[in-house]
Amino acid sequence: MTDIRIIGSPLPNIPWQDKPSDCTAPVWRFSCNPIINRNPLPNVARIFNSAVMPYNDGFIGVFRGEQRDGMPHIYLGHSKNAIDWTFEPEKIPFTNAEGKPFMPIYAYDPRLVKVDDTYYIMWCQDEYGASIGMAKTTDFRTFTRLENPFLPYNRNAVLFPRKIGGNFIMLSRPCDNAHTAFGDIFISESKDMEFWGRHRHVMSPSKNWWDSLKIGAGAAPIETDKGWLLFYHGVVNTCNGYVYSIGAAILDIDQPSRVIHRCSNYILAPEEWYEERGFVPNVCFPCAALCDAESGRIAIYYGCADSYVGIAFATVSELYEYILAHDEVSVTDEEIGLR
Amino acid sequence: MTDIRIIGSPLPNIPWQDKPSDCTAPVWRFSCNPIINRNPLPNVARIFNSAVMPYNDGFIGVFRGEQRDGMPHIYLGHSKNAIDWTFEPEKIPFTNAEGKPFMPIYAYDPRLVKVDDTYYIMWCQDEYGASIGMAKTTDFRTFTRLENPFLPYNRNAVLFPRKIGGNFIMLSRPCDNAHTAFGDIFISESKDMEFWGRHRHVMSPSKNWWDSLKIGAGAAPIETDKGWLLFYHGVVNTCNGYVYSIGAAILDIDQPSRVIHRCSNYILAPEEWYEERGFVPNVCFPCAALCDAESGRIAIYYGCADSYVGIAFATVSELYEYILAHDEVSVTDEEIGLR
Amino acid sequence: MTDIRIIGSPLPNIPWQDKPSDCTAPVWRFSCNPIINRNPLPNVARIFNSAVMPYNDGFIGVFRGEQRDGMPHIYLGHSKNAIDWTFEPEKIPFTNAEGKPFMPIYAYDPRLVKVDDTYYIMWCQDEYGASIGMAKTTDFRTFTRLENPFLPYNRNAVLFPRKIGGNFIMLSRPCDNAHTAFGDIFISESKDMEFWGRHRHVMSPSKNWWDSLKIGAGAAPIETDKGWLLFYHGVVNTCNGYVYSIGAAILDIDQPSRVIHRCSNYILAPEEWYEERGFVPNVCFPCAALCDAESGRIAIYYGCADSYVGIAFATVSELYEYILAHDEVSVTDEEIGLR
Amino acid sequence: MTDIRIIGSPLPNIPWQDKPSDCTAPVWRFSCNPIINRNPLPNVARIFNSAVMPYNDGFIGVFRGEQRDGMPHIYLGHSKNAIDWTFEPEKIPFTNAEGKPFMPIYAYDPRLVKVDDTYYIMWCQDEYGASIGMAKTTDFRTFTRLENPFLPYNRNAVLFPRKIGGNFIMLSRPCDNAHTAFGDIFISESKDMEFWGRHRHVMSPSKNWWDSLKIGAGAAPIETDKGWLLFYHGVVNTCNGYVYSIGAAILDIDQPSRVIHRCSNYILAPEEWYEERGFVPNVCFPCAALCDAESGRIAIYYGCADSYVGIAFATVSELYEYILAHDEVSVTDEEIGLR
Amino acid sequence: MTDIRIIGSPLPNIPWQDKPSDCTAPVWRFSCNPIINRNPLPNVARIFNSAVMPYNDGFIGVFRGEQRDGMPHIYLGHSKNAIDWTFEPEKIPFTNAEGKPFMPIYAYDPRLVKVDDTYYIMWCQDEYGASIGMAKTTDFRTFTRLENPFLPYNRNAVLFPRKIGGNFIMLSRPCDNAHTAFGDIFISESKDMEFWGRHRHVMSPSKNWWDSLKIGAGAAPIETDKGWLLFYHGVVNTCNGYVYSIGAAILDIDQPSRVIHRCSNYILAPEEWYEERGFVPNVCFPCAALCDAESGRIAIYYGCADSYVGIAFATVSELYEYILAHDEVSVTDEEIGLR
Amino acid sequence: MTDIRIIGSPLPNIPWQDKPSDCTAPVWRFSCNPIINRNPLPNVARIFNSAVMPYNDGFIGVFRGEQRDGMPHIYLGHSKNAIDWTFEPEKIPFTNAEGKPFMPIYAYDPRLVKVDDTYYIMWCQDEYGASIGMAKTTDFRTFTRLENPFLPYNRNAVLFPRKIGGNFIMLSRPCDNAHTAFGDIFISESKDMEFWGRHRHVMSPSKNWWDSLKIGAGAAPIETDKGWLLFYHGVVNTCNGYVYSIGAAILDIDQPSRVIHRCSNYILAPEEWYEERGFVPNVCFPCAALCDAESGRIAIYYGCADSYVGIAFATVSELYEYILAHDEVSVTDEEIGLR
Repeated sequence: MTDIRIIGSPLPNIPWQDKPSDCTAPVWRFSCNPIINRNPLPNVARIFNSAVMPYNDGFIGVFRGEQRDGMPHIYLGHSKNAIDWTFEPEKIPFTNAEGKPFMPIYAYDPRLVKVDDTYYIMWCQDEYGASIGMAKTTDFRTFTRLENPFLPYNRNAVLFPRKIGGNFIMLSRPCDNAHTAFGDIFISESKDMEFWGRHRHVMSPSKNWWDSLKIGAGAAPIETDKGWLLFYHGVVNTCNGYVYSIGAAILDIDQPSRVIHRCSNYILAPEEWYEERGFVPNVCFPCAALCDAESGRIAIYYGCADSYVGIAFATVSELYEYILAHDEVSVTDEEIGLR
Repeated sequence: MTDIRIIGSPLPNIPWQDKPSDCTAPVWRFSCNPIINRNPLPNVARIFNSAVMPYNDGFIGVFRGEQRDGMPHIYLGHSKNAIDWTFEPEKIPFTNAEGKPFMPIYAYDPRLVKVDDTYYIMWCQDEYGASIGMAKTTDFRTFTRLENPFLPYNRNAVLFPRKIGGNFIMLSRPCDNAHTAFGDIFISESKDMEFWGRHRHVMSPSKNWWDSLKIGAGAAPIETDKGWLLFYHGVVNTCNGYVYSIGAAILDIDQPSRVIHRCSNYILAPEEWYEERGFVPNVCFPCAALCDAESGRIAIYYGCADSYVGIAFATVSELYEYILAHDEVSVTDEEIGLR
Repeated sequence: MTDIRIIGSPLPNIPWQDKPSDCTAPVWRFSCNPIINRNPLPNVARIFNSAVMPYNDGFIGVFRGEQRDGMPHIYLGHSKNAIDWTFEPEKIPFTNAEGKPFMPIYAYDPRLVKVDDTYYIMWCQDEYGASIGMAKTTDFRTFTRLENPFLPYNRNAVLFPRKIGGNFIMLSRPCDNAHTAFGDIFISESKDMEFWGRHRHVMSPSKNWWDSLKIGAGAAPIETDKGWLLFYHGVVNTCNGYVYSIGAAILDIDQPSRVIHRCSNYILAPEEWYEERGFVPNVCFPCAALCDAESGRIAIYYGCADSYVGIAFATVSELYEYILAHDEVSVTDEEIGLR
Repeated sequence: MTDIRIIGSPLPNIPWQDKPSDCTAPVWRFSCNPIINRNPLPNVARIFNSAVMPYNDGFIGVFRGEQRDGMPHIYLGHSKNAIDWTFEPEKIPFTNAEGKPFMPIYAYDPRLVKVDDTYYIMWCQDEYGASIGMAKTTDFRTFTRLENPFLPYNRNAVLFPRKIGGNFIMLSRPCDNAHTAFGDIFISESKDMEFWGRHRHVMSPSKNWWDSLKIGAGAAPIETDKGWLLFYHGVVNTCNGYVYSIGAAILDIDQPSRVIHRCSNYILAPEEWYEERGFVPNVCFPCAALCDAESGRIAIYYGCADSYVGIAFATVSELYEYILAHDEVSVTDEEIGLR
Repeated sequence: MTDIRIIGSPLPNIPWQDKPSDCTAPVWRFSCNPIINRNPLPNVARIFNSAVMPYNDGFIGVFRGEQRDGMPHIYLGHSKNAIDWTFEPEKIPFTNAEGKPFMPIYAYDPRLVKVDDTYYIMWCQDEYGASIGMAKTTDFRTFTRLENPFLPYNRNAVLFPRKIGGNFIMLSRPCDNAHTAFGDIFISESKDMEFWGRHRHVMSPSKNWWDSLKIGAGAAPIETDKGWLLFYHGVVNTCNGYVYSIGAAILDIDQPSRVIHRCSNYILAPEEWYEERGFVPNVCFPCAALCDAESGRIAIYYGCADSYVGIAFATVSELYEYILAHDEVSVTDEEIGLR
Repeated sequence: MTDIRIIGSPLPNIPWQDKPSDCTAPVWRFSCNPIINRNPLPNVARIFNSAVMPYNDGFIGVFRGEQRDGMPHIYLGHSKNAIDWTFEPEKIPFTNAEGKPFMPIYAYDPRLVKVDDTYYIMWCQDEYGASIGMAKTTDFRTFTRLENPFLPYNRNAVLFPRKIGGNFIMLSRPCDNAHTAFGDIFISESKDMEFWGRHRHVMSPSKNWWDSLKIGAGAAPIETDKGWLLFYHGVVNTCNGYVYSIGAAILDIDQPSRVIHRCSNYILAPEEWYEERGFVPNVCFPCAALCDAESGRIAIYYGCADSYVGIAFATVSELYEYILAHDEVSVTDEEIGLR
């Protein structure tokens, strides 16, 4: 096994199943997937594309809940084991800095990242088109909206779990205001979470078909002694629609716009009925990953077919080995003279 | 329970199952769905998007039968219980007024409505593009074609079950001659079933996502003392195609172009394998509803994934209550000065 | 010269220029085209696609005036010679039957037809999409709006100048709610200008390229002893946009859905700078034709590049001869069994 | 039963199941479909759209293997019973004429045809766009690439199993370089497998909906005393994507550009979960057919939903009878004057 | 005349022609337009969409020069009278902060704005899609590139000529990476020209047709005692392509995301041959405006048909009066609850 | 001047004008352009995209004549000076090998090339989509159709004026059956003008904008001692349509699929009214070039805006020098491993 260590806390209660003996892939599914069924709340038809974190002695999460009017909003969920979840019946009650209620027309695909002692939630909302909304909380009772970090049109913003060079660091995926048929991952910096700059390109779609149309950051990067481990989604355009798979890459620890390794193979692609059949068929969409720094275990949380939440497992060492074995480092900005 | 009454005949033999105890929605599925399997006739591959009515001591229906050459035509079906159906092996033999056979190149999505003592069938056929065809019968042996009521391009014509103000009243959905990406419901009047006018707008797609792309009338409106109960289909455009759900609205009893109530939530959306998987995935398409004026029971007949027929149940009072609880009356023509 | 006679009144003051000696075509342009310049009124940027008629001892017309906010509306114009026009500074003040003002959001491509003693104006307006608006007047002071004759989406409605079989007869071109890429001419009947039916197909785009994409009626049909002479526009889709030309056909005098003759050649296509250059380049769009039954002279009024009005001349006998020489009767509904 | 004979060798070990008693169609599925599961090799995610042949005392085949980077390549497989397959772990090692390795960027939808003593493989590869690649082998160890027979853009090339008139004969489907929305089958000749000409049109999409968008040759034609039996795929464009079904036609034995019979009905269309659900839903895509000249049994190998391989059975006599019963001979080039 | 004053310096040598007596519009063209002809430099085919400023005792400008390989770059030009221009033969030699040469692959539609004592140039360049590039200079010899202010995809960035509330202020138009069919104007702030935030929406396309598709800031806003006078381009999508016209609005002086007045009419639209005919027909695209605070004279510089540069004149008072007379203030963010 | 020689015959009567003194480009227009006006024949509206050759003591040519029904056909023209042309009034009467008349539905963009003692005409015609038609003649009275060389879809076939390596050589541009938005130049060989093979890629669109969308061969290559001089058209997609310019490249004399030099700049782009305005605006489309081997003079014949024919002049030495000065050799097949 390759020598790679997750830098972080132990998480002994991380959900886990050992790899099935007949599995040759580096990532395997939880046998009880999907973990959240249809109609989990009276007015919520489907929960998917959601992010979880350890919290106190259990887990907490922000969940994309598709209401029965078709509008997505963000709901808070609690769990002891990170598998069985209970949800607050009402949408998360954001407020602005002055404490006045703030409710976007819609909000979807939330991520949840802790930097220092604050939890940040990022999502996609309407701001005359798809844009990144953001809020912070320390107690999961008060959620204070922050300035939108970027101009429209943008989706899939993912904060790094610590500052680099004194600055907050955020990945995002500029797009258009429709079912975007293109998309690269970019990275930006901020001293204060209000003004953002030093935008750099990170990765483009590749020449491999599985992520040839567009890509977007998934889970908050996991810090390792070999670099930041990033799970992202990659999309291919078949003659019958988009297929979303999950990929993995390693970013430079100090200069995370540099891609050190990038796996030419997907690590998970739609195969099961709950991934292939649903409101949007053929979607595996990662939004979070739990990891246990001690054992190297990783549990990836991913949305399935815009209808369900699934978990997939991996160990950091086997995954790293697999990435190296199929490494295809992208051309960096530097090399093509854009910096 | 809200006080609302269906105006009509009792139908004690309406198909029925009580609501499952864990169901929080106002509409629930028949547990034996789909009620018609693949390849029901030697040359018919799939039956779906069909309309039924009580007839004699049983039921009769007009069914969209997709032939093995891919062309849809209309078939007659008979049933004792409205669940188990037997079909005439040949397409319905329409004739023109002089009794000469008339057979459109294709005919699909039929509706069946009785006004006074005559049964009217409406469908979509080619007339240099998608258009409304119509015929009448009193005995289900002779089917006399009527003039096409409207210019192309139009689909989803649904007659009201009685005249209003002395005129026949028909809903329809003007469209283009392809996989139309827009669509409002309009209403028209006729003194004689030959000349039509007084076209009025009824409803547009809403700002809610589930019916944001296009809408079209489904079952013939059900008369109640609170207005006409209309089931309609609403469509959202996802990145992997259209999703068709079922919605409900109440139209003014005397001036049915006025929408009195409109439910912002869908009342049924694709969730089951027979709705999500098939020739056209993710389609719930209502074409008829049986109702028992005595009990208030309603059985909605809807096409599933362009492959099957399903039944869903509701009671008029619970449904009405749900519509009121999620009411979102559309802006009427009047208010925006178009009348 | 072929023996064909216009059935109608003499119009000795019809605008006229003799055919240039080097012209081999059946239609030739007025040498002083365009007859209306840019910015003819303070708030009107361009006048085009307009219809004129003899009135009293001069001429009157309804004109598409493109306002400086980009919205088209209809303006009244007067002329002694049908060449030099003065315009009322304000839009035509339509009222509804009760005399209340009615002003559509926009109104364009008007036609003007006199049936018995009443003048009818048809245009395209918004009714949840492009639709036919209609009004009548007897004195060009009061303009009473009539019911919209058809459901959306429709453009290019043109009334016949007399009833046939006791009914009003109207051509129209069903379409979609965008820059329609298809379009046939249909015909409809009404006893009362309120309810319309007996919709029949008249002509489709042809296999000739110049009118292969879509066609639409232009001027009100001219009655002759050989049938109704119809000028229509035909559109071809080049790699740099649509080109609108003018075509001609003869419809059966009693059964005008029957095309007796149809000229496979266009009779006028964009060639001059005022037809090729402008707000919408490459457009010749006929909306009216004056004719002198005595001399057989015809003056076609056509919009040029959505920017100007032009006049082209022809004689009925030479035109008829040309149509016969390039005749290509369309396949009628009858023959392909659609009736 | 109609008197038709397959011209060829007996194949007593052809896979077979008798027709289920409740089946009214001429083709029925193998009850153990799909015969190849997901992830059959460590780096191959899905095998589908593949071609098999008898070889020695068993069977051999060329298989489209979708790698985990999303790129398709061709793999060799062996089987005793044509149902259970073992695959070579590496892609087929093509070489050029000089013996140097040749590996296209991608290669998909292979066919395998034996002419005289040589086995030819055709596939689709990138040559500045989708193009036909070709190779030959006699021992399935050395695979020598031949010249690409045609200019781009082309897919679905299928060789005839013997020369006609002294020339090699190949079907193909010219296309564009994307998810082509059109497509006819053409036929070409060659004296030497290097220079190709005498291109003739064979079939266009029909007016029947199931094959109204595009068609492409499937299995190598089966020689019978009534002509060449061709299985092909036909595609319809629904509002939620393409549906691929299987059709059948009979081509003239000496002049195979002439279609003698063409079945207006499909003979197999997506109905089972493994055809309706997968990477590209709703695909039945035939690439090969085994046949036993003695019994008239046929086993069609077809790709399912770009995810699996399935087998379907038929007898030549029943199939022929069905084709005749639903015959719709296409208009040939001759008749419309293109030769 | 309305009482409005430009806040700024006198510019007595502003180019000027009095308004023609027959002109009823608030803006009129320079009679010698276009001022720059085709092929102004050996390798530059067309100059258009360019920005000028007073400099020393004459004028200086940054010009979009379309090279003969089709790639646009930015060239420096000098003029005594702001009408006759001489150009540096080579592209502007940008350097990065360390002095190393920086040359984008392409750069187009430059703006030039002076804040305090520094001149800033903004343009659109490739950064994995259309993005805003920026540089500064004090002497027009050294041009130091600054950080790109925003993530892709963005065009039409325009800086305000002074800080507001201590921050730099910039308008921009987020877009996609193609011929964008949508577009609103947004505003952003920065303390340091490196990190940007407080993004606010300014204006959307209107319901008027001339600017119904997309809008983008044109010239640097002109400070007046009534607010910031903004010239912008508005685009309508006709059936034969986009038409670009020039509009005007007044922004709040201290809170420039608030639109105080917005003219529902365009103030200049393509009418002349040099605007209607060229590489991209029907384009009037403003990039700069000179103004004389003393006389209130304004000279708008605008690109014509992607082929030429033109000048149009106005006086601030007449223009302001015209804006007020056709005012249509947009719905602000505040009112619809987005702040 | 660079030392380059045309290999061929002297042509002292080549049309010629010296280069204007203010012209800095390598190619300049004939001052009397366009040389053919609108409506040159009673039934021909426009002549453009045509090819000429020396013949006897004058010149002969094949001309695309757009008929008044919009259908293009090929007409023969004669000229003493290659500037003033007279046309045969009827289309070229092709026959098949047996002498029976052959007339394609349409035929456009002809080229004319002499190999040995035979003149070959290539054009684009319908063969179930755009395809290459071909005929030969020795006397310009009998025109015998040859086999179509390629499968559909293809346009812009251009033969080389002599065999290379014993084979006929032809350039072509595979495409789709619509307004193709892509296109590379390929080359093919034939021993007998009936069977074609050894297809090789020659050039793709470049990264320069002017030829970034698609390219196609123009005139028959001119043999020089430095290689084959090829004029081709390159297309850019602006927001208002395609712009066609003329480019130049040098192909290897013995292996003409190898591009030796390719000019990154266009050599002629639409600038004049007859190039920018017409049926398809902004088109310069070369189909032939006359050259005088003695003086090195070249006269390029090109279609203008699908409406006119123009001539442009160059000398081989100046042109060659210009190509070298802006050389950008394309990546050949070899280098990227496709051979």
